[in-house]
Amino acid sequence: MEKDFDPSDLKVIAFDVFGTVVDWHGGIAAEVERMVPGIDGGAFALAWRAGYVPAMRQVMERIGAGEGGFTLLDELHRGILDGVLREFGVTQLDKAAVRELNRAWHRLPAWPDAVAGLARLKTRYTVCTLSNGNIGLLTEMAKRAGLPWDCVLSAEVFKVYKPDPRVYLGAATVFDVNPGQVMLAAAHHDDLAAARGCGLRTAYIERPLEFGAGRPKDVSPRPDNTLHARDIGALADLLGC
Amino acid sequence: MEKDFDPSDLKVIAFDVFGTVVDWHGGIAAEVERMVPGIDGGAFALAWRAGYVPAMRQVMERIGAGEGGFTLLDELHRGILDGVLREFGVTQLDKAAVRELNRAWHRLPAWPDAVAGLARLKTRYTVCTLSNGNIGLLTEMAKRAGLPWDCVLSAEVFKVYKPDPRVYLGAATVFDVNPGQVMLAAAHHDDLAAARGCGLRTAYIERPLEFGAGRPKDVSPRPDNTLHARDIGALADLLGC
Repeated sequence: MEKDFDPSDLKVIAFDVFGTVVDWHGGIAAEVERMVPGIDGGAFALAWRAGYVPAMRQVMERIGAGEGGFTLLDELHRGILDGVLREFGVTQLDKAAVRELNRAWHRLPAWPDAVAGLARLKTRYTVCTLSNGNIGLLTEMAKRAGLPWDCVLSAEVFKVYKPDPRVYLGAATVFDVNPGQVMLAAAHHDDLAAARGCGLRTAYIERPLEFGAGRPKDVSPRPDNTLHARDIGALADLLGC
Repeated sequence: MEKDFDPSDLKVIAFDVFGTVVDWHGGIAAEVERMVPGIDGGAFALAWRAGYVPAMRQVMERIGAGEGGFTLLDELHRGILDGVLREFGVTQLDKAAVRELNRAWHRLPAWPDAVAGLARLKTRYTVCTLSNGNIGLLTEMAKRAGLPWDCVLSAEVFKVYKPDPRVYLGAATVFDVNPGQVMLAAAHHDDLAAARGCGLRTAYIERPLEFGAGRPKDVSPRPDNTLHARDIGALADLLGC
């Protein structure tokens, strides 16, 4: 724990969602296997997710060049999905089925510790999403999984994607607090580093199985983060909730 | 009930908040009387609220003329408050106390039927705010009053105020549904009329004491609304929740 960190000065805990709060790999793999029997759902999930960062960067480059507006993550997912379906030779899904599959991101299962951990944190802090997922996606996900957010906050509100500083600083502005009174909780060091660069506190959440059991992730602590927690329950322990 | 209305086709119930879900008159009057003993809190609340529509229109005129951006309701309230304090001859509050008073809008009490009624509606529909209040204000209010929103949606997301059509249509876009699958629930006919103009369903909620016991409001039904309900519990009854 950073030595100048006082949990009682903290007001908001903002969560990255995909990978941190919900299991995108397991959820997407299961839905793909249900709709396309015999497919390698895990490989399909990895390929779909791999398209996300390049697609998001393209949007940010277009916005930066003044050549386009913000695009919702649902639309990015849909564009990537078409390519992945071709890559995996899936031709039997009609338009309605592809749309249904694209909404699998709305139905991702929470990691087992998430609902109870968030409920504990919520007793003392404002607990919100801070995700590149669009508001509709995050709301449907929360409703299905029972995630007890105080507020669904999204890149959609700021019309730019993380890691753009406007998202992290925007969270502080929305709640009328200093950046140091907001903590980003995430399973990704790049997200946390960008938040730290804006003055936010950071908590790394271990999700060793984010990419599936076949690809365990290095979850060793890095000293730059304010806190390091095995899961969201452990984060509540560290914060005395 | 409109004869072409099928509750099972409805997806989202979006609530106006001030007056419809929370008692701004009673809440503001009580906070003012606590901070400024001897003042007529009810009259103060009415004066403060009376400044809201003109202030909001000014913002929209500036946006329309390309001369300014969106302003949060917290800031509008603060600007109006300065004038009302002068009008009521209140000079004893320092800057921190005025700021604290301005945040009374974050602490408004829910009408007695609101929490239970929303919880019932939430079992079948996505239930969100659709308010000119800013996200931070609405989130703190929900947390304190226990309002179980699926999503805190605000004019702040769309960067224009109701009754601009972009707010009502924006709610449908956010949840990826048709305007007719969204119902606005409000205690104000002008808000409902604007929503109806965008194709939304409408539910009028009776709040006869919105302006205090001394100024009962005419809450008679108007035929243009899809539904007319005594309170949020009665709305849940009408929708079979």
